[in-house]
Amino acid sequence: MGISMGPNQYGKAEVRIVTVDRSTPRHSIKDLNVSSALRGDLDAVHLTGDNGNCLPTDTQKNTVYAFAKQEPIGEIEDFALRLGKHFVSTADGITGARILIDEYNWQRIPVEGTGHDHSFSRANDEKRTTAVTIDGDRAHVVSGMKDLVVLKSTGSEFWGYPKDQYTTLAETNDRILATAVTARWRYLSTDVDWGKSFESIRATMLEAFATTHSLALQQSLYEMGKAALEKHPELAEVRLSLPNKHHFLVDLSPFGLENDNEVFFAADRPYGLIEGTVRRDDVEDAPMAWYSLAEF
Amino acid sequence: MGISMGPNQYGKAEVRIVTVDRSTPRHSIKDLNVSSALRGDLDAVHLTGDNGNCLPTDTQKNTVYAFAKQEPIGEIEDFALRLGKHFVSTADGITGARILIDEYNWQRIPVEGTGHDHSFSRANDEKRTTAVTIDGDRAHVVSGMKDLVVLKSTGSEFWGYPKDQYTTLAETNDRILATAVTARWRYLSTDVDWGKSFESIRATMLEAFATTHSLALQQSLYEMGKAALEKHPELAEVRLSLPNKHHFLVDLSPFGLENDNEVFFAADRPYGLIEGTVRRDDVEDAPMAWYSLAEF
Amino acid sequence: MGISMGPNQYGKAEVRIVTVDRSTPRHSIKDLNVSSALRGDLDAVHLTGDNGNCLPTDTQKNTVYAFAKQEPIGEIEDFALRLGKHFVSTADGITGARILIDEYNWQRIPVEGTGHDHSFSRANDEKRTTAVTIDGDRAHVVSGMKDLVVLKSTGSEFWGYPKDQYTTLAETNDRILATAVTARWRYLSTDVDWGKSFESIRATMLEAFATTHSLALQQSLYEMGKAALEKHPELAEVRLSLPNKHHFLVDLSPFGLENDNEVFFAADRPYGLIEGTVRRDDVEDAPMAWYSLAEF
Amino acid sequence: MGISMGPNQYGKAEVRIVTVDRSTPRHSIKDLNVSSALRGDLDAVHLTGDNGNCLPTDTQKNTVYAFAKQEPIGEIEDFALRLGKHFVSTADGITGARILIDEYNWQRIPVEGTGHDHSFSRANDEKRTTAVTIDGDRAHVVSGMKDLVVLKSTGSEFWGYPKDQYTTLAETNDRILATAVTARWRYLSTDVDWGKSFESIRATMLEAFATTHSLALQQSLYEMGKAALEKHPELAEVRLSLPNKHHFLVDLSPFGLENDNEVFFAADRPYGLIEGTVRRDDVEDAPMAWYSLAEF
Repeated sequence: MGISMGPNQYGKAEVRIVTVDRSTPRHSIKDLNVSSALRGDLDAVHLTGDNGNCLPTDTQKNTVYAFAKQEPIGEIEDFALRLGKHFVSTADGITGARILIDEYNWQRIPVEGTGHDHSFSRANDEKRTTAVTIDGDRAHVVSGMKDLVVLKSTGSEFWGYPKDQYTTLAETNDRILATAVTARWRYLSTDVDWGKSFESIRATMLEAFATTHSLALQQSLYEMGKAALEKHPELAEVRLSLPNKHHFLVDLSPFGLENDNEVFFAADRPYGLIEGTVRRDDVEDAPMAWYSLAEF
Repeated sequence: MGISMGPNQYGKAEVRIVTVDRSTPRHSIKDLNVSSALRGDLDAVHLTGDNGNCLPTDTQKNTVYAFAKQEPIGEIEDFALRLGKHFVSTADGITGARILIDEYNWQRIPVEGTGHDHSFSRANDEKRTTAVTIDGDRAHVVSGMKDLVVLKSTGSEFWGYPKDQYTTLAETNDRILATAVTARWRYLSTDVDWGKSFESIRATMLEAFATTHSLALQQSLYEMGKAALEKHPELAEVRLSLPNKHHFLVDLSPFGLENDNEVFFAADRPYGLIEGTVRRDDVEDAPMAWYSLAEF
Repeated sequence: MGISMGPNQYGKAEVRIVTVDRSTPRHSIKDLNVSSALRGDLDAVHLTGDNGNCLPTDTQKNTVYAFAKQEPIGEIEDFALRLGKHFVSTADGITGARILIDEYNWQRIPVEGTGHDHSFSRANDEKRTTAVTIDGDRAHVVSGMKDLVVLKSTGSEFWGYPKDQYTTLAETNDRILATAVTARWRYLSTDVDWGKSFESIRATMLEAFATTHSLALQQSLYEMGKAALEKHPELAEVRLSLPNKHHFLVDLSPFGLENDNEVFFAADRPYGLIEGTVRRDDVEDAPMAWYSLAEF
Repeated sequence: MGISMGPNQYGKAEVRIVTVDRSTPRHSIKDLNVSSALRGDLDAVHLTGDNGNCLPTDTQKNTVYAFAKQEPIGEIEDFALRLGKHFVSTADGITGARILIDEYNWQRIPVEGTGHDHSFSRANDEKRTTAVTIDGDRAHVVSGMKDLVVLKSTGSEFWGYPKDQYTTLAETNDRILATAVTARWRYLSTDVDWGKSFESIRATMLEAFATTHSLALQQSLYEMGKAALEKHPELAEVRLSLPNKHHFLVDLSPFGLENDNEVFFAADRPYGLIEGTVRRDDVEDAPMAWYSLAEF
């Protein structure tokens, strides 16, 4: 019985690039973490170590830096599309590429009431992301955001769940609901105003999280995905991974104190993990757009 | 055009459990990180917040602890199978489960030449893992290891790769090759001596890494997977994710010193990332066994 | 020759507490990480395991939660002073305490242009900190901030340094300067408007970083400390720990491209580390205020 | 009232260096993380950005790599002493240096029962450390270990502590005791067989942890320090920082199960933190040896 290579990919992960637009004294910066992965006719490199089709990951890294100079990076989706198409069109034996980009946010440091020309502070820990897949002639764009931590101090309940012999949780109609949003959304085409779409999707999901009176984190997940889809016809589907960051009410009764949902212990582990897809009906699935992405 | 729920799962992540076998004064311990995820008829909880089918993640956590007392944990694969089958067979509307377990290694502290009865030190940072999927009546077991850091100080080359306008890398016939192994292997059945199989697969892969004169990390990946499959008929396929942890030769010539592959800079980022599947021919694919696993 | 106990302390580290002010429907939240350490007559617990003077760390944790209910937390400096004085005044044999608090920032989620009443997002990764020391009758307050990442895209030079046989660095009159600010400042008294002082010191240091044309990160450090001291008579000294987060100009000449300070590689390790104290003359030193703090 | 520079230092942190001894086909490797910090006449660089005395941190990094080639690294204490003395003796205005080194452990990969000649695996996550201070003509060596995780499954009690209105903890005469050891010990001279001393101190402390029937983690701390000092006349003092990694007994009574110290929840935060010094009497203090070290 034989043994052979199955699906595989290789590339350079986490190329950290910062570019400065110095075209005017009022600089602007882009701060990215770029990973590329190539797919194709790669049996030889696995079976015999023949690197004839193996464009080095070092060259992939160089390409990222060179491309950033040849043309302004622009939106991360466009940069990823340029990179992915380049690899597939020029590297022998390479028929597919996945480009992942995380973008860090910076804001101008205020000096005497105005943002400084060339001094910046990291805005937050949240990242805007994209995962672009080039699969022969097709291009898929799955953008998103991660590490966006949100919390509702009320407007969240949890009851009506099944009980069994291992149930100890008490039902509640008022709890803290907190999560760190990882969201990815698939676009129906590549003809999109990426920056504008991102800002609007982000605001829409945040608003849905805020205004949903939540009976389960799953319900919040669905409302966030649905709101994004309803407002953004450019989207096919939204996938969300939402850790339920538990905030436990501290029992203050031993100290003669009542705790009216005021004092909480923010726990690290374990945490709930709610993952789901919200999708537009009548839209074609695109498994290659999601293939090997870590998130659900 | 409508919007609806697509694939989803939910559960409790990273339940940290330590058990002590106190049946004799010579204790033994198990140290696990257990995550459960349930799948099934969960539209209602998403669409309306009706938790009727939503066995709480808190109950899932309790079940892990209770099961650990009711019967010795044993091998992590058996514990995961017991948990997964329990959830699918007893929870209304739940038709699938994924149980992930990482196991930490401990060794006895030596005292006067012998291992102490009840004092232990963490052996290393490596974890033995399993990902068990219950899908209705079927059970898939995908076990593995992660965070196993290895290095070859010679016996690794890299040349013969394509050059383009972005190539600067020099070819080499002697370099350091280092990686942190994440491996997962799928078993053909659940009738396996899990512990013995794990130890043998681990030793086989390490030996393959050590003895392969490597022309590419991809070749090492293939040899590691192939060796495991050849020696272990219980396996259907092996998937490996191997970061190429670059060790760059330091240029000492400005200081009048020659660096004959002796002094290296161990870089953090970027790193290569080589991912691939080695599989036995004529074996049925099992996409559900791998569904939503982070690794390739 | 005898052996004995030297300096020591013990306590509960990283008590994660979130409180909700529900006095009106427009909630506000506080999110803190609190560590307490007690000092005093603790020889017996070390030498013989006699816990007579050892107020359990579990009790210290409970005290944090109870105090948060008995009175609003208020400014972290005030909360730390209350906790520290409580332990020293009520626990037998305890004569000193160190309370460390990190505070996380949250902002309201915007809904239709206004901040929501009870939904929040984490503002950034920066923390406001305090380290309060109670030493018998004396109280020292050392407040600060950490994880504030800043970057200047120009206005930074580095030249005129000594050269030796190991020098390869080229002089530059234009480079990126980036750092993650950890700052601690010691107050001359405890009669301070803490929140107002913090906001003003933070803004002053950021502005000094932005407006200093920097010939060395040390110079930026000094200017940041000096500006804070000049504007804030309530301060005795400022200590700063500034990693020089190197951004290396990528050599694009192999690709026929000029890199006019536009494309940079953001490196992880190694990094420069610049640490220093800026202090007001004629002010008494207070080594106990800094004792055992990790930062310089 | 004037403002001036107080204590300060600067250097290159976390220079990751791996060296290969290729003098025979049976290679050996050293894997270090080296940080240097220089002190001296550094007012000018802070006050005016005059770098005349500021040996670049880049040069410090180069020196680490060059020194590793010029002479085998040997024991980390010797390497740190060579580096520190070099900086103080050759750099203008530099009168002090602190060299920190962490060493990672590797072992040979077994192949057919023997360790391979040039293939290695990371032994564990524990690091051997040194902090060498050059202060003019004096040299201090403070070595240690960190990230050594240990656990006793019995032989640990905690009772007899003071109770107050915030006490809820129950006394116990059988609990899990677990910690991650960070230890530093100061040598009385630099004429030491460093490797042999390290191995013996490490084994002695582990044995003391294992064999001490512990009434408090403080008692274990003292016994570990005392054992090291008693057996090693080359030591002046030992400082230990021991997080109490809580393992909470899970309440299984709701499920009709008794938990006889068998099933535990391993908590992340908060944790106890026990820090202390055990010292030889009649030995001179050496504050400069410990100055600005993060650990207690």
